[in-house]
Amino acid sequence: MIVLDKNENEPKYLQIYKYYKSQIVTGQLVEGNRLPSTRSLANSMGISRNTVEAAYQQLCTEGYLTGKACSGYVVLPFDVYLYNDLLDNQTQKNAGIMEVLQDSSGQDIKQNIKYNFQYEELNIKDFPIRTWKRAINEILNSYEIDCLSSYNDRCGESGLRKEIMKYLYFSRGVRCKPEQIILTSGTLSAISLICQLFMDDYSEVALEEPCYDSARKAFKNHQMKTIPIPIEEDGISIPILNASNAKLVYTTPSHQFPTGKVMGINKRLNLIKWAEEKNAFLIEDDYDSELRYNSRPIPSLQSLDYKGRVIYINTFSKSFTPSLRMSFIVLPYSLLKKYKQKFSRYNCTVSWIEQKAMQFFMQDGSWSRHLRKICTANKKKHDALLAEIHQCMKDKVVIHGNNAGLHILLEVNNGMNEKELISRAEEVGVRVYPVSVYWENQENYKNNMVLIGYSSLTEEEIKKGIQLLQSVWF
Amino acid sequence: MIVLDKNENEPKYLQIYKYYKSQIVTGQLVEGNRLPSTRSLANSMGISRNTVEAAYQQLCTEGYLTGKACSGYVVLPFDVYLYNDLLDNQTQKNAGIMEVLQDSSGQDIKQNIKYNFQYEELNIKDFPIRTWKRAINEILNSYEIDCLSSYNDRCGESGLRKEIMKYLYFSRGVRCKPEQIILTSGTLSAISLICQLFMDDYSEVALEEPCYDSARKAFKNHQMKTIPIPIEEDGISIPILNASNAKLVYTTPSHQFPTGKVMGINKRLNLIKWAEEKNAFLIEDDYDSELRYNSRPIPSLQSLDYKGRVIYINTFSKSFTPSLRMSFIVLPYSLLKKYKQKFSRYNCTVSWIEQKAMQFFMQDGSWSRHLRKICTANKKKHDALLAEIHQCMKDKVVIHGNNAGLHILLEVNNGMNEKELISRAEEVGVRVYPVSVYWENQENYKNNMVLIGYSSLTEEEIKKGIQLLQSVWF
Repeated sequence: MIVLDKNENEPKYLQIYKYYKSQIVTGQLVEGNRLPSTRSLANSMGISRNTVEAAYQQLCTEGYLTGKACSGYVVLPFDVYLYNDLLDNQTQKNAGIMEVLQDSSGQDIKQNIKYNFQYEELNIKDFPIRTWKRAINEILNSYEIDCLSSYNDRCGESGLRKEIMKYLYFSRGVRCKPEQIILTSGTLSAISLICQLFMDDYSEVALEEPCYDSARKAFKNHQMKTIPIPIEEDGISIPILNASNAKLVYTTPSHQFPTGKVMGINKRLNLIKWAEEKNAFLIEDDYDSELRYNSRPIPSLQSLDYKGRVIYINTFSKSFTPSLRMSFIVLPYSLLKKYKQKFSRYNCTVSWIEQKAMQFFMQDGSWSRHLRKICTANKKKHDALLAEIHQCMKDKVVIHGNNAGLHILLEVNNGMNEKELISRAEEVGVRVYPVSVYWENQENYKNNMVLIGYSSLTEEEIKKGIQLLQSVWF
Repeated sequence: MIVLDKNENEPKYLQIYKYYKSQIVTGQLVEGNRLPSTRSLANSMGISRNTVEAAYQQLCTEGYLTGKACSGYVVLPFDVYLYNDLLDNQTQKNAGIMEVLQDSSGQDIKQNIKYNFQYEELNIKDFPIRTWKRAINEILNSYEIDCLSSYNDRCGESGLRKEIMKYLYFSRGVRCKPEQIILTSGTLSAISLICQLFMDDYSEVALEEPCYDSARKAFKNHQMKTIPIPIEEDGISIPILNASNAKLVYTTPSHQFPTGKVMGINKRLNLIKWAEEKNAFLIEDDYDSELRYNSRPIPSLQSLDYKGRVIYINTFSKSFTPSLRMSFIVLPYSLLKKYKQKFSRYNCTVSWIEQKAMQFFMQDGSWSRHLRKICTANKKKHDALLAEIHQCMKDKVVIHGNNAGLHILLEVNNGMNEKELISRAEEVGVRVYPVSVYWENQENYKNNMVLIGYSSLTEEEIKKGIQLLQSVWF
């Protein structure tokens, strides 16, 4: 017998629904049992028939009952044992919870780290917060805001893609039309898209050894076999590449990650020639090439490619902010048709408002002002870092990959291996980072380097950090 | 001989750089040629040595020259023929441009369409633009803004994930902890992540027939074999599913897409049991289940799963706006360890500011207010649509999948097939949409339905549109 709780702020129909549901779930009402007619129940409880009807209808929709107001409602088959079997030992549900919680994400910095030479985060002081606020609100208040309720252009806002095209042409020598540009939510999303584009043709991808480990991970996650190709002074080894079966190459020609090497002009020409002969494609990750100190940016590989073999990718994460999750791909025309076939139903993965804000930001000149600003700011830090290293460590270290980007590799010749270098640094509150992760085959790596990022620290902090390193390393 | 253009606003060093680069590229300077010393060139041109040095250094970095200021600079090998060979027939580059440009994205609506019963776009009038502006600026002005220069939590902002957890528990009966929730930039990004999680174990996925074609496409793009499983009145056919080798099932139990069917309670229990026995996983796409009219929302499949077999995904695209590109996955604990192994280096693909704005929006109650509002708004449209169809078309049509979501399927029994129904509608300026695309095997589809979305139109427009359809269909 149902007892409605008048004080209960739960609607009456819900109380009736729950009552009969529990009756069925606990097996007190079984297959074929007939529920009281809506009229009789309504009368007996002094409520309206519609209330009862609503409760019964809900039970029908969910599959507990069948029937109609006129002909009456009957209980459907319900497997109480199965229900209880699924319900019991909830503990199973929590299997693995501990190991998961133990496995800390590895991002968090220990409290006692005072100078963190990390690479990924930028310095908020270099971010044009006021201008960006203006850009966002410009869009929020514009007539275009109606687009907010739509998916919009599947490849990204055409206005933004025009701005990116112009920027790429003038700063990177990239020749493309807006329809070749696809916005993605980060570089790994770009790689995922490229994998999906090629997975039915190619099962292997060649990567520079060492290379950006996240990219390698992304290719592996798409079941692509990754083939490490050693790099020479002027970039990836073409003979070894040629000996592999790879038809897809991931490369960072203008600022090799992590070594910072630059691919020479001849190597670039020969790589494109190789790709054309092999009907292969080159993925050029141009990730932080805006940031060159003491020389102009190196023209992109794509700028030399008239054969449509280069897939160009770049990101706003290094030059603007990673929290925006905005990157892009420039596909050669030869791939656009295949792209449309595979991705015609995909929507853009980047927020529309922030695409429009970035378009506004680029159109009104703030973008190029910002680039000049961060280039100067990071050059100062870069120079301070190098000066301090020279002063403190002299010829006991070798610096790799300076004059560009936001990090260097420091080869330390004091007999310590990477692990020791890092742990000794932590003892004095300095965090430097392993380089070993970037090698697919550890034996190719002489284990005496650390990665030093400098963009998130001040010049003062950089100097103090290096002095502390000197004190524990030598 | 270099002639500097003093008026040219291009820096002098750049002019020198370009001059020698062209000399090498055109073969007038060849391997071994020695460039004038920085001193002599500087003197002869009446400029500083540093200017010349800068130009030479750039040519060295790019691989045209080798040498030092002291010992002089020498031209490196450069393959002029290769360079020209790559340069010529640029036409190749434009191969395929025409077909690409012809292939219009299919999104654009012909001018003469007055009543567009499309499904994807929402009605901007239902979007809480003022509150959302406030939420965005709340973050832009908060002390937390420093996080803007970081990648932040790889799975999504913990504060937002807590809000999503609460919301899911109360509105969908989903039981989870924040660490099970992963933010993704859209449902297809969620599916891509799930594919990457399973591709090394499973090569097949079972999908309801018919089903959301974009999801099917995404699985195919990850080289997963898609197995269509017919749906019965109460959902996917378990015997046929059981006969397949699939260990992964994509399902829309609470509002089957596109048919709108609801999976009955017994089917749900048996599906979970099947998954447990087969060590299989169920992907529950709960895409628009907030929107139920004339009944309460159907509890999610995940709410019945105590065995950790259900991967729950949902999106803000139907209930808030698709332009945000915000969706999420709830992984069972049993998969968290594997997830961390594969994705430890992936960053969140959703914009940080908008994550924080959404957190704020949910915390201050705007989210639930918004849900109530759109539920009422869409119920009105839904009821108007059904009333008009009943009035105009009576028993000549059958309505499928009403009482929920933002669309219905209309089965039209006038002898016309889908194609005719659509083209006749266009003749009077009404657009309705094909259903055939949702079937993997066309022969399973009796070709006389159209999909009618109503959320982007007003009640008045809906009525007029239906009247026009009646005029050309009967």
